[in-house]
This record gives sequence, C-alpha cells and structure tokens, in this order.
Amino acid sequence: MTGGDRPHGPPRRFAVLVSGTGSNLQALLDRAATGVLAPAEIVAVASNRPEAAALDRARAAGVPAIALDHRSFPSREAFEDALLAALAPHAPDAIVLAGFMRVLTPRFLGAFPDRVINTHPSLLPAFAGAGAIEQALAYGVTITGCTVHFVDAGVDQGPIIAQRAVPIAPGDDATIVRARIQAAEHALVPAVVRALAQGRISCEGRRVVVVPGGDPDDADQLL
Amino acid sequence: MTGGDRPHGPPRRFAVLVSGTGSNLQALLDRAATGVLAPAEIVAVASNRPEAAALDRARAAGVPAIALDHRSFPSREAFEDALLAALAPHAPDAIVLAGFMRVLTPRFLGAFPDRVINTHPSLLPAFAGAGAIEQALAYGVTITGCTVHFVDAGVDQGPIIAQRAVPIAPGDDATIVRARIQAAEHALVPAVVRALAQGRISCEGRRVVVVPGGDPDDADQLL
Repeated sequence: MTGGDRPHGPPRRFAVLVSGTGSNLQALLDRAATGVLAPAEIVAVASNRPEAAALDRARAAGVPAIALDHRSFPSREAFEDALLAALAPHAPDAIVLAGFMRVLTPRFLGAFPDRVINTHPSLLPAFAGAGAIEQALAYGVTITGCTVHFVDAGVDQGPIIAQRAVPIAPGDDATIVRARIQAAEHALVPAVVRALAQGRISCEGRRVVVVPGGDPDDADQLL
Repeated sequence: MTGGDRPHGPPRRFAVLVSGTGSNLQALLDRAATGVLAPAEIVAVASNRPEAAALDRARAAGVPAIALDHRSFPSREAFEDALLAALAPHAPDAIVLAGFMRVLTPRFLGAFPDRVINTHPSLLPAFAGAGAIEQALAYGVTITGCTVHFVDAGVDQGPIIAQRAVPIAPGDDATIVRARIQAAEHALVPAVVRALAQGRISCEGRRVVVVPGGDPDDADQLL
C-alpha cells in the first residue's frame, strides 16, 4: 500500500484528497504538467463529495479521479477502508490534503506514516479548525497566512513544514483575504511536495528541517 | 489624571512601564531625542523592579524614572494606586507597556481608557503569555513576529493595532529569534505611539483602523 518497490526512499507518488473546488489541486496539476513538480507526480485524486469540482480538474488533467461519498458508509472506518482500497491500484506513497474536509483516523494515517500533509489557511497554531479566515477577521489580526504541515491525530496540530505570511488591511473581507492566502498556498504546496519527493524534508519530533533546494530553475524559490 | 487639559484629543504624553532591560524603551527614547516621535513625548518611565536597567536608560535620557517595587505593597490594588499616584505629577494620557511583567487590573486600565498599549513577542493570538519565543520554538513554527495591541482585562487578548512577521529558520535558538523580533518591535512600537499621538488610530470593538501616515519623512514607514 505504501510505496511499492521503494518503501525507504522519499515519496514520489502523491494522491490528493479534496472536498471542494480544488484550487490547490489545480496548482499541483499545472506544475506537474510543466515538469516543475518532478520528481513528484500526482497519481490519483479522491473526493468524499462526488460533485466536487476538483474531480473534474483531475479528469481534465488525465489523472484518475475517485469519488467516494462518505455518507454512503456506515462508519468512518468503513469509509477509510474503502478509500484505501480505491487508492491502492495507483500505489500512492504520500497523501496531500487539499481542502479535504474529513478528519482522518490513525487507521488511514498509519498507512502513510509521516507522509500525509495538509494545507491550512492560517498561521497555525492560530485559527485552527474550520472557518480559519473568518476567525482571523473576527479576531482582528493584521497578519495571517497559510501553513503546510504533517498530519497527525490532532486537528491542524501536526509538525509544521512551511508557512507564509499574508497581510490583512482595514476593510478586507473574507473573499479578498482568501484569494491572497490561496495565491500563497498555490506556490507553497507544490514547493513542499517537490521538496518531499527530493528527500529534502525530514522531521524529528515537532522540528521539521527543510534542506534548501538551491535550484535556480525552481520558479517558486520557496523551499 | 488622564490628559489634563486635552482629554478629548489624541494622547500625546506617554508613560512607559517596564520590568527589565528596556530595549523597547530605548527605541522610543532614541526617536524622541531625534524628533521623529513627535507629537508624542515620553513623560515618565516606571518599573516594578527597582533594579531594572530600563530606569537607567530613562535617567540617561533625562526622563523621570519611577521605581516602585510591587513586593513592598500588600495587594495588587495598593501597588496600582501607588503607581497611579507616582505617575500623576507627570500627567500622562497614555501608557506603553514595554516588557512590563505585571498584569494590570481594570482599576489601573480604567484611568487610561483605550490608551494602554502593549507589545508582545509573537503573532497573537498564537503564543500568548510568558515565554512566547520559547513557545514558538517548541511548536516548530517557521513564522512568528510581534504584536502591538490595546490592553484589556485579558492577558494578551486586546484589540490588535499592528503586527510584523519574523521568520524562524532551522537551527535558530531563542537568542537569535529574540533579536530578530526586537528589531521589528523597535521600529513598530514607536510608529504606533506616533500614530496614536497623531490621532490616526481608532478602535471599534476588536477592529482597529490605522489611517496611513503618508509622511515621506517617516523613517519607519510602518503605519
């Protein structure tokens, strides 16, 4: 299930889990298409919402799209078992949560140890959970951002891989702040996926070390 | 007590409360000396620790220095009453907490309504309370910063006026992160004090609006 013939090298076959429009998925697909995601590749996309627009983005890019409505399963465990079974033929060795709105249990996470990452629209640990942008506006911060982190059993609590700050100006509403955060995520998430595939990211406890890429061809220059 | 002859205009006579070395105080005194803090002025400095180096900084700048050991008072209220009495001859109309390690009660805050500001070495609401830099390093964030906020009855919970982001790189220890945050604070705190004195900061609920200064002579260009 986890890696096939190269279980000990860095992950290269990424499956993306989505629930919504999939703009972060699109950023990954676009970079994969132009070769700048290599050596990482997107081998499958799965959604717990069959109607998610993200599945159309996957199909348009020629990537296998899996629709599994979580409401049609009797339990969280049954849903996760079906998800693992549907992913298995594509042999992913890492998972990207890109707007995936279901909490994963240790059952699923255990199949990809230290190889599930999530992107969250705040500078964690501030504004964890749902509605992060609305939380930030209600609090009145002038800086928020995005966080890419490893997923553990807690919600939005895993070790942080990378963060980017995004300003909030007086009068900004959730729409404009969301657009600004998404622009940051669309650069950061692919950069993290690529760095993972290049074996440049290691994690000891909560401390994540990212070895700089130093690649002048890396348009993102983010990691 | 609060403003003397101009209680309804913006505050201009700032007292600074300190407990330690007073590097943020020094940043304020330096800017006052070169005229770039105007129309704000620093009219007094008070410390709850008589041995605080910050008091020497005040004396060196010719600013009245008040030492009031909180341990010599029977209660928090008695300490605050003495502090208010000691400040009164200098007629401050606003208070800057610059590394002041005592929680103020509504008794003191009520004497300077919406005119007590604090600087905290994190991007609040993340890492409130003591040891903010150590908390951030333990969590493993890659971005922290500083927050200047109005003080209310909660600890580090008042409305945010301004924030600045500061990066944390792998291997950074508390000393280097502290230096980086202090550099940001030393620009931000005087900029906020000046903007307050210019009447450019207003607060409705938790939402603080800072009208840009647009002053080409403002070396900080921060607010």
